[in-house]
Amino acid sequence: MEKFDSTERTRVRRLPKRGAYERDVVYAILDEGFICHVGFVVEGQPYVIPTGYARAGDTLLIHGSAASRMLRVLQGGVDVCVTVTLLDGLVLARSAFHHSMNYRSVVVFGKAVALEEPEKKIEALRALSEHIIQGRWDEVREPNKKEMDQTLVLSLPLEEASAKIRTGPPLDDEEDYELQVWAGVVPLKLEAGEPVADPRLKPGTEPPSYARDYRRR
Amino acid sequence: MEKFDSTERTRVRRLPKRGAYERDVVYAILDEGFICHVGFVVEGQPYVIPTGYARAGDTLLIHGSAASRMLRVLQGGVDVCVTVTLLDGLVLARSAFHHSMNYRSVVVFGKAVALEEPEKKIEALRALSEHIIQGRWDEVREPNKKEMDQTLVLSLPLEEASAKIRTGPPLDDEEDYELQVWAGVVPLKLEAGEPVADPRLKPGTEPPSYARDYRRR
Repeated sequence: MEKFDSTERTRVRRLPKRGAYERDVVYAILDEGFICHVGFVVEGQPYVIPTGYARAGDTLLIHGSAASRMLRVLQGGVDVCVTVTLLDGLVLARSAFHHSMNYRSVVVFGKAVALEEPEKKIEALRALSEHIIQGRWDEVREPNKKEMDQTLVLSLPLEEASAKIRTGPPLDDEEDYELQVWAGVVPLKLEAGEPVADPRLKPGTEPPSYARDYRRR
Repeated sequence: MEKFDSTERTRVRRLPKRGAYERDVVYAILDEGFICHVGFVVEGQPYVIPTGYARAGDTLLIHGSAASRMLRVLQGGVDVCVTVTLLDGLVLARSAFHHSMNYRSVVVFGKAVALEEPEKKIEALRALSEHIIQGRWDEVREPNKKEMDQTLVLSLPLEEASAKIRTGPPLDDEEDYELQVWAGVVPLKLEAGEPVADPRLKPGTEPPSYARDYRRR
């Protein structure tokens, strides 16, 4: 199984048994999520901004307005840290100390580059749309020239990344298992509700199945 | 209504109408979430790490192992950016370009300090526990001396913060409203499932209501 090299930046130091470096483990997390938190530095100050993303092959794509400061900073080829976190549950132990959460997270380090070629750019925008809501792209109006010019798409190579994962029940101190207190996991999941139609929707337009039955893989 | 000052770091530049600086708006978002993404810089490299948090009055609390690099770095009084993101829905427009998400996010800037005094520390740990799962603290074994020594609690003053919020239906270009394509919002929410008992649970221990009916305010 192909692995990312564990680097000074990606090595999971605390609780190293939670670290995972297999490319398919990292990609499965990236493919389930669609919101990342992008960290970058401006004049020594860290900024963390949430944004949508997609994985396309061995790259991570993000996009936004060409006027976005974050994208303009990243386009300059600075070091970036992109973190994706999937929260799977609250872990209730018998002691306060051993409470925890079940989660799967990925950190990616690297430098992003802007996609300039119109064909690559539209392909990336399609990938972003399909990653977030599969089936949507083919039904909507595609971006026109003006919209393309207003959009910046950045690609971050997936070369330096690692995952950190916690699963399963709480792990209590041996003597605490005698305590008469409920322990276990409260599972958590991002769930979609009933689609809410735009008030200006044309009558007779039904929500498509990708909106009615939205779920992450 | 009391407002945070809009600073160079917190002013919402892109789509300024989405910015909010009222303290109670920021606090309501912080109180609903319980996972933040902490951004800090080590030797010019940004890191973004997910962790639990609580708001206690006008401070944000985070905690973890005294061996955690993140906490040790932050304890040094470096600049930190803490971001909390609540995802509320996918916004499906008639054009690819106007697709968006509904969300409520907060960024906090500042420098954290470690809580040293045992009483303040235990009070903070209780606040963290209660913030994440209200009612739990009183039922579990409290931290002992050794566990307290292994735990670092940091407090970040809520002095420089802002929120960014998008709500409501898509906003399409006027001519696109004629298109016969479904448009609207797919609501998203972090939902709790049925509690899963620890395999080593003592027989006859029922899940408490805070686990059975877990929800965020």
